[in-house]
Amino acid sequence: MKNIFESRIERIREEMRKRCIDIFMVFSGDYHGSEYVSEYFKCREYLSGFTGSAGTLVITDDKARLWTDGRYFLQAEAELEGSGIILMRSGMDGVSDIDDYLKETVSQGDTIGFDGRTVGLQYIQELADELADANINFDPSACLTDIIWDDRPLLKTAPVFLLDEKYAGEASDSKIEKIRKKMELLSADSHIITTLDDIAWILNLRGSDIPYNPVFLSYLLINRESIYLYTKPDVCDDSVCTYLKKLGVSLRDYDSFENDLDDHKLVGGKVLADNNSISVAVYDAISDRAEAIWDRNPSSIMKAKKNSIEMENERQAHIKDGTALTKMIYRLKKNKDIEKLTELDVAAELKTLREEQEGFIEESFAAIVATGENSAVIHYEPDETTNTHIKKDTFLLMDTGGHYYEGTTDVTRTVAIGTVTYEMKKLYTAVLKGNLRLAAATVKKCGGTNIDILARTPLWELGYDYRHGTGHGVGYLLNVHEGPQSIRIKRVSGEEDTDFAEGMLTSDEPGVYLPGEYGIRLENLMLTVPRETTQYGDFLQFETLTLAPFDKECILTEDMTAEDLALLRSYYAKVREKLIPHLSSEEKEWLLEETEL
Amino acid sequence: MKNIFESRIERIREEMRKRCIDIFMVFSGDYHGSEYVSEYFKCREYLSGFTGSAGTLVITDDKARLWTDGRYFLQAEAELEGSGIILMRSGMDGVSDIDDYLKETVSQGDTIGFDGRTVGLQYIQELADELADANINFDPSACLTDIIWDDRPLLKTAPVFLLDEKYAGEASDSKIEKIRKKMELLSADSHIITTLDDIAWILNLRGSDIPYNPVFLSYLLINRESIYLYTKPDVCDDSVCTYLKKLGVSLRDYDSFENDLDDHKLVGGKVLADNNSISVAVYDAISDRAEAIWDRNPSSIMKAKKNSIEMENERQAHIKDGTALTKMIYRLKKNKDIEKLTELDVAAELKTLREEQEGFIEESFAAIVATGENSAVIHYEPDETTNTHIKKDTFLLMDTGGHYYEGTTDVTRTVAIGTVTYEMKKLYTAVLKGNLRLAAATVKKCGGTNIDILARTPLWELGYDYRHGTGHGVGYLLNVHEGPQSIRIKRVSGEEDTDFAEGMLTSDEPGVYLPGEYGIRLENLMLTVPRETTQYGDFLQFETLTLAPFDKECILTEDMTAEDLALLRSYYAKVREKLIPHLSSEEKEWLLEETEL
Repeated sequence: MKNIFESRIERIREEMRKRCIDIFMVFSGDYHGSEYVSEYFKCREYLSGFTGSAGTLVITDDKARLWTDGRYFLQAEAELEGSGIILMRSGMDGVSDIDDYLKETVSQGDTIGFDGRTVGLQYIQELADELADANINFDPSACLTDIIWDDRPLLKTAPVFLLDEKYAGEASDSKIEKIRKKMELLSADSHIITTLDDIAWILNLRGSDIPYNPVFLSYLLINRESIYLYTKPDVCDDSVCTYLKKLGVSLRDYDSFENDLDDHKLVGGKVLADNNSISVAVYDAISDRAEAIWDRNPSSIMKAKKNSIEMENERQAHIKDGTALTKMIYRLKKNKDIEKLTELDVAAELKTLREEQEGFIEESFAAIVATGENSAVIHYEPDETTNTHIKKDTFLLMDTGGHYYEGTTDVTRTVAIGTVTYEMKKLYTAVLKGNLRLAAATVKKCGGTNIDILARTPLWELGYDYRHGTGHGVGYLLNVHEGPQSIRIKRVSGEEDTDFAEGMLTSDEPGVYLPGEYGIRLENLMLTVPRETTQYGDFLQFETLTLAPFDKECILTEDMTAEDLALLRSYYAKVREKLIPHLSSEEKEWLLEETEL
Repeated sequence: MKNIFESRIERIREEMRKRCIDIFMVFSGDYHGSEYVSEYFKCREYLSGFTGSAGTLVITDDKARLWTDGRYFLQAEAELEGSGIILMRSGMDGVSDIDDYLKETVSQGDTIGFDGRTVGLQYIQELADELADANINFDPSACLTDIIWDDRPLLKTAPVFLLDEKYAGEASDSKIEKIRKKMELLSADSHIITTLDDIAWILNLRGSDIPYNPVFLSYLLINRESIYLYTKPDVCDDSVCTYLKKLGVSLRDYDSFENDLDDHKLVGGKVLADNNSISVAVYDAISDRAEAIWDRNPSSIMKAKKNSIEMENERQAHIKDGTALTKMIYRLKKNKDIEKLTELDVAAELKTLREEQEGFIEESFAAIVATGENSAVIHYEPDETTNTHIKKDTFLLMDTGGHYYEGTTDVTRTVAIGTVTYEMKKLYTAVLKGNLRLAAATVKKCGGTNIDILARTPLWELGYDYRHGTGHGVGYLLNVHEGPQSIRIKRVSGEEDTDFAEGMLTSDEPGVYLPGEYGIRLENLMLTVPRETTQYGDFLQFETLTLAPFDKECILTEDMTAEDLALLRSYYAKVREKLIPHLSSEEKEWLLEETEL
C-alpha cells in the first residue's frame, strides 16, 4: 500500500501533466510571508508530512525532494520516513542547494510551477537569475495543492481587538503620519503592506488568525489621503469599526485585494512596497501597471525600535514571565516523581503558571519541552506522537514564551534532572558563558554579524558549535520572530545586516546539540539601550529582560573567568530583586540558594 | 598670486571646455588598481597637492572638491590649505559622498570625464547606476592631466628578478596549472590579469617599479596553451628571459596590451577577468568583443593562503624584523638626548637596523614615525616639511615594515618617551587588550567582520573608537596591503567578507587617536593556522608572528583580566625565546626586564 504522502504527490503529478508543468515547487508560506501559518496554508506539510516551520518541496515526474535546515534534520528524517521523499540537508557538505539542484535538473524550456501567492518575490527573482541560461518558464498560477486538497481546513478568522495606547505607547495616527512622511520622502503615492505584523502594529490592532501570532489576515493600503484595510468579513466589531473610521481607515474585503491593485482610483501613482516581503502574485499585480518603489516597509524598523512605554511594559511582562518559569523550575527540581510527567504535562503546567499572571494572553509559540535526546532536536515540539516521559540523569530543555498585554517573551532554560556528567556541565557552562558575554557587549553602529562571535567563542574553543543563529528580533505582542535585526555569523543572503538601535528587543540564545544524546540552549531577551555618547560616537549596550535562574548544578565556576562570574552575579542580583516579591517562601528560599555563587 | 594647484585646475577647466566635459574626476590609481602608485601616475596629487594614498578629486566649472577618508582628514586639511579645494570628509555626518554629491550636482545630459585606465570598472558601474535618471555621458578617454602635466616624471621601470623556490615555496608552473584548472572549471579560454601582485606571485618574479611594492609594471594573459607577459622593454635580463621561455611565457610590449585585447589570435573565446580589479579601459576593450566571465582572479585567494614554506619563511623574517625593531626601541628608551633626533632620524636608524639583517630587501612601506600630536594623524609620514624633533613626555608611534626574501613584515609599536599620563596609559592598555584578544580568537567559517569587535571592545567600553579597519591581508614579499581578507566592522560595499583560511597573513592593529594630542596603535601580523577539526567543523586560530615588546611603562596591569595577562605572558615568552639569541647582553637584560610582568 502506498504511503499517504506518496499518493498525494502522485495526484499532484497528474495535475502537473495536465498543465505541462515539469517541476512543481511547494513553499511553506501563506500569502503574507508569515513565518508561521494557519492550518489552511500548510500545503507543504499536507504533501510531505514534514511539520517543521521551514522547508521546500520540489516535485519532478519521478522524484520528490524536501530541503530543510539544520534545526530540522532529525525531525525531517523521522517524518519523511516511508514517504519516498528525499531529504536534502541544506548547508551540509555535498548537498546541492535548491538552485544548484534545479540548475542540474532542468532541461531547456522547462516549466516550473508554484503558487505565486505563497512565495516571496526576491526568492523567485534570484532563482530566475540562476536559471537564466535554461530558458525556463515560471508559472506562478499553478495552485495545484488547492485542487487536490479535499478535506482542507477552513481559513479561520477571529475577532480583531484594539490594543490600548497604554500598551502600544503610540497612537496609530501618529504612526501613520510618520509612514506618510517617509512616503513623501520617497515620492510614493501609495504604500502596500502585506506583512501581518506590520499591519497590526500600525493600526494598534491585534487578532488571532495564526496560532501564537496575535495578528489577523489582512492587507493594508496607505495612500496620501486614504487608507484601506482588507480583512475577512465580520472580524471587526462595532467598537473597532468606529475606531477605524476615526482613523480614516475604510474596510474592504480580503479577497478583493488583488483585484483592487488594478484599480487606479484605489492604488495610484508611485507605489511603495517591500520586495523582500511581498509575494510574486502581488508583485505581478503592481508591476504590471504602477511605478513601483522598492524599499523596506517604513514600519519594519519603526516597529523594531520599541518606544519607551513598550520598553517599560516589556520589563513588567518579563517579571511575570520569569515568575511563572521560576516556579516551574522549582517544581521540577523538587518533584521526586518527575518521571511520571511527560513533556506535554510540563508544557501544560508551565502554561497554567503563565495563565495565572495578569495580562497573559497566549503562548508566543508552541512550547518546546524536550527531555534527553529530544533536546538535541533543535526545534523539537512534543506532540501526541512524540510525547515522552521526563527522563532522569539528563537535561530537560524548555524553550517557551508568552504574549502579554505588556509584550512578548521568549526564554529557554535547560535543567538537569537527576545527575548529569562532567561533560554535560562543561558544555552547559560554555553555553552560559556565551549567553552572558553576548549580553555584556558594547555596540556602536554595528549589527548582529559583528557580535555573534561573543556567544560562540566559549563553544568554539571546545570544538563545538550550533547550527542556528544566536539571536532574532522579537515583536511587542506580535510575532516572536521579528526583523530586521538578527544575530548570526553570516548575513542572510542579499540582505544588509541591520545595525542595533535603541529599543530593539533581541534574543540571545546560544546552544549545543549532541544528536542522540542531549541538547542545551540558554536564551534571554535583551533590550538595546544607550550606554554613552562621546565624540567618538553613540555607544549602546544590552539590558537583559528575561528573569530566571540558570541551573546551579550545571555551572562549573572554575571554567568561568572572574568577569563571567561578575556578569552572572549581577544578573542574579536582578533576578532576586525582581522575582522574590512574587514567590512563596519555599520558592524564595530555593531561589536564594540557587543563585548563590 | 594664484596658488599653484588653483592654476593647474584652471588649466584642466580649459581642457574640459574644449571637450565639453562638465565634471572631471581624478582618481588615485595607476592602470593596475594598485594601492600605491609610482610618481608617473600621481595625477590627483599633481592637481590638488594632497599626497595621501586615497582620495578623489572632482572638478566642475567653478568648484573643486576632494573626498578622502578618516585616516587623512588632518593631513588633507593641511595640504589643501590655500588651494581653494573643498575637503569632503567621507563618512562624517552631513558630508555627502561622491555619488550623492554628483546626483545633486549633475544636470540632464551632462558629461563626466575621467581617465578610464585609472579607475576600476565596478566603481564606474555603480556610479552610472546611481546617476541613471540623469542621462549622463561618461567619457573614459578624457586623459586631461596627461595634456597639462608638463614636467611629468618618467614611467620608470627596474629590472625584474626571479624569486627562488626556496622562498616562493611553489614553482610557477604548478601555480599556472592550478589557474588553468580553475579556468577549465569556469569554461574560460583566456584569463587576463592586470593586478601587479598577482602577476609577480604567479610567475615567482619580483621588481621595483612602485616604491615599497616589489612588483613590476605588466599585464599577464594566460590562455589554455599560451601565456603572454606584457612588460616595458629590457626589464628582463637573459636569465629571466630563459626562465620565462622554459615556463612557456612569451614576452610582449607593455604598451601594446590594450591593442592586443582586440586580437582574436591572442585573446580568444571566453575571457576570465576580475571586474573588481580591472580598469574601465580594459573592460571596454574586453566587453566589446569577447564573452567575459567575471570572477575573482583565481590567484587572489591562492596567493593569500601562504604555503608551508612561505609560512616558515615568514616566521624567520619576523625574527629578523623583531630583532631590528627591538634594538631600536632599546636605543630610544636609553637615549638621554632623544630630543635631538627627528622623526626622519629615527626612521633612518630603524631602516639601517633592518638593513643589517640578512635577506632584507627594502622597507615595505614609507615608515610612519610620529611624535606627539603627529601620532594622532593616522597615516602620517614624516617628510622634509613635516619632520619634527622627538618630543618628551608623549608617545612616539612607529608603523614600519620590511621586505625580506623570507617575506614581508608590518609592525606598529607606540613608545612612551619620558613620562606619560594615566589617561595615556589607560588607552594604551585598552589598545593592547584589543590586540591580544583579537589574536586569541578561535574562528570557524567566518571572516573579518565577525571578529573585529574583539579588538574594539576594550576601547568601546571606554567610549573611544578608531576610524580605520583593524586588519588587512599582507603579501609574501609583495604588497603590504593584500586582499581578499580583511578585519573590519562593515564589509567593503558590494564585497562579500572572505572567510579566514589556513596560511592567511593578516594584521591586527587597533589604535586610538586624540587629534592635536597623541595617537596609539599596536600592530602585529598573525598567521591563520589550524586549531582542531571536530564533527562540528574545522576550527582555526591565529599565530602571532611579530616579535617585539610592548611598552611596560604604559601597561596598567590592573586594567587587564587574568586572561589578558596570560596572553601577554605567553606572547612575551615567545618574544624572549626568539629574540634573545640575536641581542647584545645589554639589550637582552633590558628585554628581560621589559617583558617581566
